Amino acid sequence: MSAIEDLVTELSQLPGIGRKTAQRLTFYLLKQPVETARRLADAIRAVRDRVKACGVCGMLTDDDPCVICSDPRRDASLVCVVEESADVGAIERAGRFRGRYHVLGGRLSPLEGVGPEALHLERLLGRVGDGSGVREVIIATNPSMEGEVTATYLQQLLRPTGVRVTRIARGLPVGGDLEYADGVTIAQALLARRDMSEAD
Amino acid sequence: MSAIEDLVTELSQLPGIGRKTAQRLTFYLLKQPVETARRLADAIRAVRDRVKACGVCGMLTDDDPCVICSDPRRDASLVCVVEESADVGAIERAGRFRGRYHVLGGRLSPLEGVGPEALHLERLLGRVGDGSGVREVIIATNPSMEGEVTATYLQQLLRPTGVRVTRIARGLPVGGDLEYADGVTIAQALLARRDMSEAD
Repeated sequence: MSAIEDLVTELSQLPGIGRKTAQRLTFYLLKQPVETARRLADAIRAVRDRVKACGVCGMLTDDDPCVICSDPRRDASLVCVVEESADVGAIERAGRFRGRYHVLGGRLSPLEGVGPEALHLERLLGRVGDGSGVREVIIATNPSMEGEVTATYLQQLLRPTGVRVTRIARGLPVGGDLEYADGVTIAQALLARRDMSEAD
Repeated sequence: MSAIEDLVTELSQLPGIGRKTAQRLTFYLLKQPVETARRLADAIRAVRDRVKACGVCGMLTDDDPCVICSDPRRDASLVCVVEESADVGAIERAGRFRGRYHVLGGRLSPLEGVGPEALHLERLLGRVGDGSGVREVIIATNPSMEGEVTATYLQQLLRPTGVRVTRIARGLPVGGDLEYADGVTIAQALLARRDMSEAD
């Protein structure tokens, strides 16, 4: 296979990139200075070589612990649980949350065979356990069916710890994706979070 | 800058890829096996390291001369002139053309400062000159204003050689881009090509 065909094939395997877009990108790269293509290739390698999960919160990051877990100004008593690292970026862009995060690395999905063992739950329990100083866990899983199931599961899992468990409000459109929500919606959803123990 | 931010920045500089798409692609790559990211990075490097312009027709290719110029079954007496290498792929997909190509590497554009000296015109004259056996040059530049201007310029440039100069029919929507035209339209435009000398 030629180098051009090869790159078109690799690019067209990325989500949302069809064969024509892949061709367009390939010829674009061929017309740019060699340095442009080199920088892109190096950035792709670097992201896979340097980025790891934070040992505390599980977020994908260059630093371990991540900049948020190691920031003394962030409120360690407030932990916001999200499905994926990209969700942390979405909430950070909203600029209203001053606590810390916990990244599950997915959500419960019986259809896709994702059970509790696939998520970073033990690490979460460890953070929330007695004497940790955590007083509230905000569950910010996506407002999809899987996200709600995951939230309910977490609520039950955390109940014995006695910590306050809240859920961000359904200000987000049901079936939508947290990653694509605008900052105002996310900020409002955080403000209008409700107590999951009350909902029982 | 973090490796994640770095890759998002590099990806968002590609045409048609905004910042959110770049973020989505970055986190997609982070979730794939390391090999997936490596293959993509290597394919990008390879395409810039291995791909060169064919010494005969100017098409970007791994092989010099390219597979089309070195294929004895292709009709060397028929030369189709296109703006960019991607256009060769578009015409090849139409599956109706059995001649060879000449890639100009752009089109005349006074606004962007692209004059005749920026195009591979001398090489084209060399191919078409006396005794070369070329009997027809089909001009398949884009049906845009720049493409038409380039076609007219080529017609005048080639007139002294006495070769037949044709232009693909305007079956393509004016202002459209050859690269994105479907195969049927391209095939019809090739069949309905008109003699540029007749149009004088």
